[in-house]
Amino acid sequence: MESKAINAIRFLGVDAINKANSGHPGIVLGAAPMAYQLFTSHMNIDVKKPNWINRDRFILSAGHGSMLLYAINHLSGYKISMEDLMNFRQLGNTPGHPEYGHTEGVETTSGPLGQGISNAVGMAIAETHLAARFNKPDYNIFDHYTYVICGDGDLQEGVALESISLAGHLGLGKLIVLFDSNDIQLDGKVSMTYSEDHKKKFEAMEWQYILVNDGNDLTAINKAINKAKKVSDKPTLIEVKTIIGYGSTEQGTSKVHGSPIGEDEATKLRSVLNWTYDPFVVPQEVYDEFRKKVTLRGKRVHKKWEQKLIDYKKDFPQEAKLLDEFLANDYQLDFKKMQEIIKSDKEATRNISGKVIAELSKMYLNFIGGSADLTASTKAKGADGDYNKENRLSRNINFGVREHAMGAIVNGLTLHGGLKVFGGAFFVFSDYMKPAIRLAAIMNIPSIFVFSHDSIAVGEDGPTHQPIEQLTGLRAIPNLNVIRPADANETIAAWKIAIESKGTPTVIVLTRQNVKNYDTTSYEGVSSGAYIVSEEEESIDGILLAAGSEVELAMEAKKILKTKGKDIRVVSMPSHFMFENQTKKYQKEVLPKRNKILAIEMASSMSWYKYTHDVYALDRFGASAPMEDVLKHLDFTKEAIVEAFLKL
Amino acid sequence: MESKAINAIRFLGVDAINKANSGHPGIVLGAAPMAYQLFTSHMNIDVKKPNWINRDRFILSAGHGSMLLYAINHLSGYKISMEDLMNFRQLGNTPGHPEYGHTEGVETTSGPLGQGISNAVGMAIAETHLAARFNKPDYNIFDHYTYVICGDGDLQEGVALESISLAGHLGLGKLIVLFDSNDIQLDGKVSMTYSEDHKKKFEAMEWQYILVNDGNDLTAINKAINKAKKVSDKPTLIEVKTIIGYGSTEQGTSKVHGSPIGEDEATKLRSVLNWTYDPFVVPQEVYDEFRKKVTLRGKRVHKKWEQKLIDYKKDFPQEAKLLDEFLANDYQLDFKKMQEIIKSDKEATRNISGKVIAELSKMYLNFIGGSADLTASTKAKGADGDYNKENRLSRNINFGVREHAMGAIVNGLTLHGGLKVFGGAFFVFSDYMKPAIRLAAIMNIPSIFVFSHDSIAVGEDGPTHQPIEQLTGLRAIPNLNVIRPADANETIAAWKIAIESKGTPTVIVLTRQNVKNYDTTSYEGVSSGAYIVSEEEESIDGILLAAGSEVELAMEAKKILKTKGKDIRVVSMPSHFMFENQTKKYQKEVLPKRNKILAIEMASSMSWYKYTHDVYALDRFGASAPMEDVLKHLDFTKEAIVEAFLKL
Repeated sequence: MESKAINAIRFLGVDAINKANSGHPGIVLGAAPMAYQLFTSHMNIDVKKPNWINRDRFILSAGHGSMLLYAINHLSGYKISMEDLMNFRQLGNTPGHPEYGHTEGVETTSGPLGQGISNAVGMAIAETHLAARFNKPDYNIFDHYTYVICGDGDLQEGVALESISLAGHLGLGKLIVLFDSNDIQLDGKVSMTYSEDHKKKFEAMEWQYILVNDGNDLTAINKAINKAKKVSDKPTLIEVKTIIGYGSTEQGTSKVHGSPIGEDEATKLRSVLNWTYDPFVVPQEVYDEFRKKVTLRGKRVHKKWEQKLIDYKKDFPQEAKLLDEFLANDYQLDFKKMQEIIKSDKEATRNISGKVIAELSKMYLNFIGGSADLTASTKAKGADGDYNKENRLSRNINFGVREHAMGAIVNGLTLHGGLKVFGGAFFVFSDYMKPAIRLAAIMNIPSIFVFSHDSIAVGEDGPTHQPIEQLTGLRAIPNLNVIRPADANETIAAWKIAIESKGTPTVIVLTRQNVKNYDTTSYEGVSSGAYIVSEEEESIDGILLAAGSEVELAMEAKKILKTKGKDIRVVSMPSHFMFENQTKKYQKEVLPKRNKILAIEMASSMSWYKYTHDVYALDRFGASAPMEDVLKHLDFTKEAIVEAFLKL
Repeated sequence: MESKAINAIRFLGVDAINKANSGHPGIVLGAAPMAYQLFTSHMNIDVKKPNWINRDRFILSAGHGSMLLYAINHLSGYKISMEDLMNFRQLGNTPGHPEYGHTEGVETTSGPLGQGISNAVGMAIAETHLAARFNKPDYNIFDHYTYVICGDGDLQEGVALESISLAGHLGLGKLIVLFDSNDIQLDGKVSMTYSEDHKKKFEAMEWQYILVNDGNDLTAINKAINKAKKVSDKPTLIEVKTIIGYGSTEQGTSKVHGSPIGEDEATKLRSVLNWTYDPFVVPQEVYDEFRKKVTLRGKRVHKKWEQKLIDYKKDFPQEAKLLDEFLANDYQLDFKKMQEIIKSDKEATRNISGKVIAELSKMYLNFIGGSADLTASTKAKGADGDYNKENRLSRNINFGVREHAMGAIVNGLTLHGGLKVFGGAFFVFSDYMKPAIRLAAIMNIPSIFVFSHDSIAVGEDGPTHQPIEQLTGLRAIPNLNVIRPADANETIAAWKIAIESKGTPTVIVLTRQNVKNYDTTSYEGVSSGAYIVSEEEESIDGILLAAGSEVELAMEAKKILKTKGKDIRVVSMPSHFMFENQTKKYQKEVLPKRNKILAIEMASSMSWYKYTHDVYALDRFGASAPMEDVLKHLDFTKEAIVEAFLKL
């Protein structure tokens, strides 16, 4: 039966990939046994309640093996039909790489290597934190594992190495990674480019390491997973030696990694693996096996948990209420109230942001986050002390100098559910996290990324630390709300939008230097993307359009222009993304095309040409000097703006 | 004397940082002894010939410690005056982070952590390769070390972890990293976020590990460096335990990491360290010491090398000629000849690129590169087999699934000199390498990045593998030439531009799918950034402006529009960067503003609005399906283009 069930996975994979004439059969053939063992003996999931908060998480970090996931999820009873499998890699339910929110039972979007395993670290952190918050003697409300299948490629990626390092440091005992170690990667043998001692390396990083010599040995795999579960203070890597493309003529070579094996080869494979069924035919006994060992077993576990929860609600009504709040995923920020708390005349928006974070931390006990070793600079710091092995309840996560892992872990924490999560860094280092930010946008999850030191006004640290093209690059990502607030009000508004967002990640871009707070800046304005912060007095002579600290520059330039008889409107555009979502009518009211419009930003001009042909921006790298000198050197003074406007 | 010399470094640092009121004194105070020992006993440099090809390379990967580098370079005799030091972090010669090409003796631009050490891996690879090419018995023309000082932060960064892994695999024995291990990072103690066993981890990655317990123990440091030099088949990490901000009141805390210690504290420190000199006063005996041990010793070593070279030229005239060619850094591609060799009617531009690479590899023996485990897909493969421990002469570097390290290593190989270097990946994974690409642009070095799978036409792999915002993001980087060729001719032209570039890195963006080759595409056109590939017949009704594979789409749309009585011009714009460098006159000729212009690209619209208000682009993520289905689904068909144009 076991071998039949495993073959069912294998041939669903091989046949779907053949039919699609595209896909990665190697991992499906090699890793099917470990996936089978994991799902049938360990995974606690309720396929009818795929969002059960205490389910075990399973992440296929080697996302190219999507058919492995689809096959096992189909057999386990998730909403993936045989027709879906036959439509693999067509427009529909079973895309080429697993996509979160697209296919049931997919916990994250994986494919770009190193991301899935890093998301898993976030999920494992979430579990420990929620367990610390809610569990009581006899009530393990949060008590689940996070399982990963990863490949050699994952373990070569920097983002994974960062996450693995942090996971070891944090002692995430319920993180169990099955490493499909087949000695092959796309270009050939792994040994062509990698020859580390896995055991030694993982042990050095405070992981438990277990070797399973034969990837077809279910008993050994099972034993290893059990052993992993027993160690509660260290994550475990189980290196499972497998043969890529197991059973096929080209097994053990990179040829079976990324191309369909073809019909003839599939026929041969049927004979080798003793599989007598036609493509997309699964014998009922296999379905029965999965029904028994995955579907019903999981359902029972879930039911038991629900019953416990009923008692928990009685015994711990307050905690149960809090749990409901955590799971409701509903956050609100009262703009006016926050304004009152955070009074500011002139202050760096990073400071304002830090204060908002502190307030939100009081309001929402599930608001958690931290910085990549820049807490002191970004002011993006979680509450209640530092989260670590001993303090699972603390809400400041020291990510270390691991920006990319931070991005992916923030996504993982968010994906887990029950938490609202942020991560902070210098804006220029958003570059290090770009792949993770992109994935948040693809997945429609509301991760929050907080970036300070937003421009050449960084000053002395110089060009390597002065963002230029970062705003443009991030604004070009679909479904990403990049907000660059002009002042305290707009910063509070940015946070209101970020915390209330359900399906869009938010990037908040903050100043290092002080900026004036204006009476006319508002939440309504920010949430419109762009709005008038200073009206023309009578008849408009032109518009100064700006974002962030350049709004103040525009306001100052307006004053001078007034002395020269020019009647100027100033428009703040904190979010291109939200402005694009407004009606054409609104857009035209704010930025009437018949007017001279000068867009001003101390960064790449590229993102402004949609709104005007006249852009006063910076298409060169910055310079190292005190802020005022840099701004003068690069012509970002009110006088220079005035001059530029008068030349239009 | 030693302590006097070390104090000179320390106080130049402390005083310059105090004067600038900005900077990082902690590392200068802590790491001065190791820098002193390295420079006075080991570094073979000739400060009067800072570009001597066989000089030892020194990389301060912890670039925030720039004053350490400037101080020691000043004392060693490089062109850094005392006035420069007094002007630290002002507009001038001594920026906040070391900038290549800006200050003498700075081998790379560092600051973004993890980059410097990764550049160093590239430099060490370069040395082994050039040594294999040129050295003969008794003639070690290439025989130098690459030294690094890095901090805890560097060793947390994924890019560094990737590079370190590869360096171990490649057995780069002449790479010696001094790890300034002071247990402190910006946010506090390293132990807050990191608790690995360095020795075990580095040994697992095939490095030699040496511990120096006291960072002030010059003998121990010296012994360690000597021991490192003795092991020729492994890189060495020397962990030097230091005290950050040594001698100051707040030594050993993060308070001395990133802020000036102030005048009072400097006075106290003078007393603690027994330094009686005023700020920016260095006793002559210290200069003498450096002159003797660094300047003159290095000069002698260089002179001896030059004399050897004279003999080498006699004994190996052919090799000597080749060496001259390597060092001339002068490359040319004969466009017509290459066209003849690579005849193509309809082919994927990645294939054309692969053929050009093969030809260039024949023409230039110092043309070297490889891919991040995607050689088979990107066709970006170096010649002469795989470079590794045993085959130093081979020119294909298997970077592994380490895109970011690849970017930084390509930069390091380029910075070393004597080589022309490329690295290849899927275009969507340019995200993983962004920080390294940016640094190439900042440094004005001609690294070449080759990216295939440039659009949603990737098809089945789906949204995670389909670039959308990448073109915009990279086009917004100053001094980066992003070329997206339309066909075979334009691909050859892109390579001609890339290989002949001296101070601008090039990104070549290639199709996975076949595209038609046109008679009208040309080198002249590509090097103008944009040009007419299909003239209007009589009186222009509009312009279709496109890049890459969309040029063919435009050409097909033009045909249909002709049947509808529309006389269309088609403009190919392979490089926004080069178009911006043209005269306004040329720009207006190609894209006369009075005309309807429809820009077409299967990617973010953002970078096109500078040229037209009418952009037919893709501001959403892609989809997984066969190419034709994806293109139809997302409306990228000739019919859709026709419709869009007619609606203008």
